[in-house]
Amino acid sequence: MKDFPQPLADLIDELKRLPGIGQKSAQRIAFHLERGPREDVERLARALIEAKERVHLCSVCNNLADRDPCAYCSDPGRDPSVVCVVETPYNAISIEKTREFHGLYHVLHGSLSPLQGIGPEQLKLKSLIDRLKDGKIRELIVATNPNVEGEATAVYLSKLIKPLGVKVTRIAMGIPVGSELEFADEVTMLKAIEGRREI
Amino acid sequence: MKDFPQPLADLIDELKRLPGIGQKSAQRIAFHLERGPREDVERLARALIEAKERVHLCSVCNNLADRDPCAYCSDPGRDPSVVCVVETPYNAISIEKTREFHGLYHVLHGSLSPLQGIGPEQLKLKSLIDRLKDGKIRELIVATNPNVEGEATAVYLSKLIKPLGVKVTRIAMGIPVGSELEFADEVTMLKAIEGRREI
Repeated sequence: MKDFPQPLADLIDELKRLPGIGQKSAQRIAFHLERGPREDVERLARALIEAKERVHLCSVCNNLADRDPCAYCSDPGRDPSVVCVVETPYNAISIEKTREFHGLYHVLHGSLSPLQGIGPEQLKLKSLIDRLKDGKIRELIVATNPNVEGEATAVYLSKLIKPLGVKVTRIAMGIPVGSELEFADEVTMLKAIEGRREI
Repeated sequence: MKDFPQPLADLIDELKRLPGIGQKSAQRIAFHLERGPREDVERLARALIEAKERVHLCSVCNNLADRDPCAYCSDPGRDPSVVCVVETPYNAISIEKTREFHGLYHVLHGSLSPLQGIGPEQLKLKSLIDRLKDGKIRELIVATNPNVEGEATAVYLSKLIKPLGVKVTRIAMGIPVGSELEFADEVTMLKAIEGRREI
């Protein structure tokens, strides 16, 4: 035998398919599970199946949710006139953590990236246009990532949506709070100066 | 809603219990699985259960195996007079990869660490002593890690086993092959000099 027992090798192979998990991490996790109680493994296996079975995309905003519409879209306390466009459900969580945004979301599930073959058709854009049709949305806050793809997506959205009479805004880029100017790269510094506000 | 849908939150919690997986990695893995096909999740869940169900400790050497005795212990082509003592099944794999060791293994499942409350009783030592009783083992190669705990374990084993008339050896410590002297720490350098051999 040059290698692991087959069921262990199979588990390591499956774990390696997960993002950020290489051979060493997969081995470490597999050995950890072999050492621990059987209940732990069963609970993990059950959580995997449950999450896949019960979590789906919200038919309105495309967020991950265990009901439809999702908890955001079905909350009467939120302001439906402001919609924040994000790349992933995870980004919506980041914004939610500020506790200051009370509008709704729209999850694109990606950003424009011609190099990776991701064009407008691959993003959840059609449903966004549909949401804008009844005229109830006043402002669209584009919170895609501040990188090449996210910027391209923001510009694309702006050109597509402004003609519909909806205000399109972009989140501010600048020096992170608690950071020091010394460590800011030139582009961030430039964005910080360009985006300066009177105090 | 301030957080993930419950089944997703549950999955993230379970993933976070795995070694080396923090909140961010767990989220990333969970989102990856939600995006991917259902079959992938089912295959992972099945691999987890299978590995736990079918892999057990070898009753002779304590290696992880899907049969008993394990593939090493039941291989008539291996030399039962030399036993290599390792801390984990993973370490046995590392030695196996050299393709030059043809003896058997004994897995301690840990190393002596009084600070962590791991004494001789917590290691698979009794079964090692039992294996030595019939006098067929000539040499015990101690391949525990070259750190404080591994060294303490090696010294402990040596004191315990030498009186039984069995040769106890320790793997060599020194400069790693392909490395440069410049990058060796003092202790490794000292071990390399102490362990010098005539050429």
